[in-house]
Amino acid sequence: MKDRIYVHDLPLHVGQKVIVAGWLHNLRDHKNFGFAMLRDRTGIEQVVLNAEQLEQLRALQLESVLKFTGTVVERKAKDPSVKAVEIQAETMEILSPVTTVAPVEISKTELDLNLDTLIDNRVVTLRHPKQRAIFRIQAALVQGYRNYMAKQGFTEIFFPILAGAASEGGSEFFKVDYYGREATLSQSAQLYKQITMGVYEGVYGLSYSFRAEKFGTSRHLTEFNQFEFEVGFVDGMDEVMDHAEAAIREMIATVEQTCEVELRLLNVSLPPLGTKFPRIKLQEALEVYKTEGGVDETREPDLSPAAERWLSTEWAPKHYNSGFVFVTDYPATKRPFYVKLDPTDPSNTLSFDLVGFGSEIISGGLRVNRYDDQVERLVAKGLNPAEFEDYLMMHKFGIPPEGGFGMGLQRLTQNVLGLANIKEATIFPRDVQRLRP
Amino acid sequence: MKDRIYVHDLPLHVGQKVIVAGWLHNLRDHKNFGFAMLRDRTGIEQVVLNAEQLEQLRALQLESVLKFTGTVVERKAKDPSVKAVEIQAETMEILSPVTTVAPVEISKTELDLNLDTLIDNRVVTLRHPKQRAIFRIQAALVQGYRNYMAKQGFTEIFFPILAGAASEGGSEFFKVDYYGREATLSQSAQLYKQITMGVYEGVYGLSYSFRAEKFGTSRHLTEFNQFEFEVGFVDGMDEVMDHAEAAIREMIATVEQTCEVELRLLNVSLPPLGTKFPRIKLQEALEVYKTEGGVDETREPDLSPAAERWLSTEWAPKHYNSGFVFVTDYPATKRPFYVKLDPTDPSNTLSFDLVGFGSEIISGGLRVNRYDDQVERLVAKGLNPAEFEDYLMMHKFGIPPEGGFGMGLQRLTQNVLGLANIKEATIFPRDVQRLRP
Repeated sequence: MKDRIYVHDLPLHVGQKVIVAGWLHNLRDHKNFGFAMLRDRTGIEQVVLNAEQLEQLRALQLESVLKFTGTVVERKAKDPSVKAVEIQAETMEILSPVTTVAPVEISKTELDLNLDTLIDNRVVTLRHPKQRAIFRIQAALVQGYRNYMAKQGFTEIFFPILAGAASEGGSEFFKVDYYGREATLSQSAQLYKQITMGVYEGVYGLSYSFRAEKFGTSRHLTEFNQFEFEVGFVDGMDEVMDHAEAAIREMIATVEQTCEVELRLLNVSLPPLGTKFPRIKLQEALEVYKTEGGVDETREPDLSPAAERWLSTEWAPKHYNSGFVFVTDYPATKRPFYVKLDPTDPSNTLSFDLVGFGSEIISGGLRVNRYDDQVERLVAKGLNPAEFEDYLMMHKFGIPPEGGFGMGLQRLTQNVLGLANIKEATIFPRDVQRLRP
Repeated sequence: MKDRIYVHDLPLHVGQKVIVAGWLHNLRDHKNFGFAMLRDRTGIEQVVLNAEQLEQLRALQLESVLKFTGTVVERKAKDPSVKAVEIQAETMEILSPVTTVAPVEISKTELDLNLDTLIDNRVVTLRHPKQRAIFRIQAALVQGYRNYMAKQGFTEIFFPILAGAASEGGSEFFKVDYYGREATLSQSAQLYKQITMGVYEGVYGLSYSFRAEKFGTSRHLTEFNQFEFEVGFVDGMDEVMDHAEAAIREMIATVEQTCEVELRLLNVSLPPLGTKFPRIKLQEALEVYKTEGGVDETREPDLSPAAERWLSTEWAPKHYNSGFVFVTDYPATKRPFYVKLDPTDPSNTLSFDLVGFGSEIISGGLRVNRYDDQVERLVAKGLNPAEFEDYLMMHKFGIPPEGGFGMGLQRLTQNVLGLANIKEATIFPRDVQRLRP
């Protein structure tokens, strides 16, 4: 639409005649005159209607799509430091009339719906400014991640989704009828990112993962996206953590720079970054949780959700002015077959989690990179090396010392924004019950 | 790996001691001395080995992963305008020894394999510089596309893949066992991009599409990616074509700027862009194909592959110095239910294809944006509106005049690079027979 002015640019056009267009977010009817609250992708603005226009809009419902010409005039603002404007409408065109009352009230400050109603009506609820803001921030996180990776000269990979019958056993694979054969949906891009690392040395991408988990919690989806990263020719795990930290810093910077309005709208404050994210071993983390946090979980093989929360929201901010902490050296029993064992203690792995926003957001580590070692690890995990032929081909024909990480997009978004349920951070969530919209 | 120097930067380090690391691409054995051709992600360089190092490498196979320290020295180049260097090795470390002969010879200038051998051995064949180059260029196309869209302030959407049982009928859906129910894999993000356009006004993304087609041709995959785009508040179809043209220009510019080496390696020259891509109606295109091309297909409802080739590689370059041409106004019988009918002739649609690189690369158009019209179109196409409830909810609650397009990533890559089969342009292709690697 040529010459259309967006709502957030209107204060630059005071005294001018402009074209604006958007949705009828609300209608304020004062009998002989009225106001249309017009919503476009940049904001909501008041349009002063004449009696005839008001009459026309009375016959329609909210969410009708309208186009106005009119003059931008200043008006008194609640906050005197802000220039407030409104539009004195001249012409009005109804681009798409709505004649049905919307199933939810988009014009309310808070939608305040139960989760199923929110998602069932996604087509409409997504129009609410606070819902819309969630996925603007999500897109900015992805943009920051990719920008960091591209600047390193790494290569973006578009990972496949359909694969042969499940080789990792597991009942959590979704099965696809593939021309009468059985195919599965990818649970992880791990094998593919390692294969392509063996070509491009540094690779990244946003994968789709599918998990046919039997239960539904506030943190589970059957379909989700993962940030993937893998890098070769590393001297040690610190190099992998350096990339994870730098990626997180660029993601947060991108959100801060491009989503100021959205962050304010959702009342989100981002955690401190400090000069460097602390890096401590799991056992040390459990020790400080005991001595400083007063909770003894030192016999556990992993961090509890409470320990993750305490480390990233209390301990690391206090000692390092950082909302993030790398926890390293998880036991071999808790890590998958491709994670490198600690050569000085094979019950330990060269692995890490990044804990931030109150919970684990990244899981990574160094990888087994020699063929014999990988075969041995598969057997030790009860898997059949013969079913990993393509994967092992990579080890057989030489891969460098390497590592990488994965980070769930929707879970990260949930944590960044402090949302109660991961489905709120998923534009079209799928769970045990849900396949629509 | 700290202080590692990449092959393409070696000419900047003549006389210096450096660390290099990569794969043993080839070994030239001259009895008492020899050369290792070392391949990293930036190129291949010659390392002069001493007798002991040569002896060690004789015991290994190509693709072993090596690290050298050594001094960069100039050597005579075939092309005197280029500074050629080699490395006089001092120390050599074997990072990953390879003891098995690779199933294909990566060190040959041309791999020259049949397609199945190429793909079966993807883990290794992808290491060939010409194979590797294909997916660097593919990633650059995606980067250019996204950069254009982000600069417009449009929002990236991560489209869902799992959906309920097929509503569009169609035997070409893959069926998924979803907790005992039937789910399907997305054939297209069309409905989702329209829904989110109704929120963000301009949306884009890279979707996954799945088609259970019964046949396999050189242009078909069962799983592929699509560039998606949808924009609202348009005055007409020209605005949608303007975005398509600008996106293509930025994609090509990104490839030219970031993939110079790869383009030269694959001997690809990009088509002329002219000042503006010509836009002609289908009937006019068929007329010029008759009068100038000498082939009468004026009674056809579509362009033949031969006509597409002639238009984009002969007619448009000759008349417009452009390798691209928009062909508009396809008959309603050839376009899907969501495409807007021409108000002046309902047998015609407000639709377009962009023809370039010898074939159709983009398909787009304006959309039906009023509820009653969309219900009518569904019925006319033999579909049941009741099965499109979520989609029609969007029309019911107001969407602006809008349009968009889709563009297959692998097909585009195939066309840009002039590859015989689309599987060559797909990193891990899936077809009727193939689900691995």
